[in-house]
Amino acid sequence: MSDMTSNADAPRSPGRPRSVRADEAIVEAVLDLLAEGSTIDALSIEGIAARAGVGKATIYRRWSGKEALMLDALRRLKGVLPQPAGHSVREDLVLLVGAVGHNVDPRAAKIMPCLVPEVNRSPDHFRVYQNIIEPRRQLMREVLRWGVRSGELRADLDIEVVMALLAGPMLVQRMLRWNPDLDDDSLPGRIVDNVLGGIQAR
Amino acid sequence: MSDMTSNADAPRSPGRPRSVRADEAIVEAVLDLLAEGSTIDALSIEGIAARAGVGKATIYRRWSGKEALMLDALRRLKGVLPQPAGHSVREDLVLLVGAVGHNVDPRAAKIMPCLVPEVNRSPDHFRVYQNIIEPRRQLMREVLRWGVRSGELRADLDIEVVMALLAGPMLVQRMLRWNPDLDDDSLPGRIVDNVLGGIQAR
Repeated sequence: MSDMTSNADAPRSPGRPRSVRADEAIVEAVLDLLAEGSTIDALSIEGIAARAGVGKATIYRRWSGKEALMLDALRRLKGVLPQPAGHSVREDLVLLVGAVGHNVDPRAAKIMPCLVPEVNRSPDHFRVYQNIIEPRRQLMREVLRWGVRSGELRADLDIEVVMALLAGPMLVQRMLRWNPDLDDDSLPGRIVDNVLGGIQAR
Repeated sequence: MSDMTSNADAPRSPGRPRSVRADEAIVEAVLDLLAEGSTIDALSIEGIAARAGVGKATIYRRWSGKEALMLDALRRLKGVLPQPAGHSVREDLVLLVGAVGHNVDPRAAKIMPCLVPEVNRSPDHFRVYQNIIEPRRQLMREVLRWGVRSGELRADLDIEVVMALLAGPMLVQRMLRWNPDLDDDSLPGRIVDNVLGGIQAR
């Protein structure tokens, strides 16, 4: 849970503090409304409050506005960051590639494709999207840098492009079923092995 | 122009035959309506006819229905297929990767992101999307097969995955600006060189 949704000052009571229950109801309301087809633009703090059964002030006490709330809600869809084990560059990359475009919440299948037009339309929504994926890109960047230091990967690695090579195929496959003939389960391993080995004849 | 929109039987007259002008007006009407924010579902043959200034019968004479018309309209956005020169696998792949997610019509910037939710929602729209990209995938497949035959590429090439490695990064970059730090102009060459050479230390 992020700083924004934790609340160390909440009065203790048996079970979860009331403020945490309210936070959850608010985030759930956002995800339900998006999954039912609302655009981000059409979501209002008023409508979210009504759906969650809380007052608008309860939302504003926790989040500075819709953008911050959206960020927490969309992070919830994606679940916790994967944790590379650090034993092998290949294994860690397969783990991270498998997490690209993967969501723990079934509402994501409805919500995530709808973000594509919104991210294109609005700089605010683009920023929310980048804030969600940057920590995941950063994990991949660290694994690649570690591979360079350990001598497994070439010293002149073009890290930003290599990240796109690893994440792009998985993302278009999960977001668009770009090539329906590809098997999603074996794809992370095949992507990583092809990027590692290259396709040129030796 | 595809078979569907050519009309060898049209009476000859000075300038373009009237039927061709009508076809163009119809395709333009579809693209204008989509660029103005209409979903594919919301488009009706009636609405398209009204916008194009033709009767519904004129549309049904040329296209079997909305799906066929949509296919021609979206193909128009993408422009003609690129033509690999056949001198070098690297050069041909850079050409094809540069064409991924590239559109000749400025209305595409508004229309293409909006197709992502539609392709996810509807099997009909998914089929239209696949019909647009499959000829482009096929071009890339042929270049890769030619590279295997010529000995430039490894004999055991995992062709479908390699196509995703080449196209995926370009597509997420053009569709989502996935990594805003990447420079789009140099990206096709950098993608191809990394896929060719691989990232493992030698």
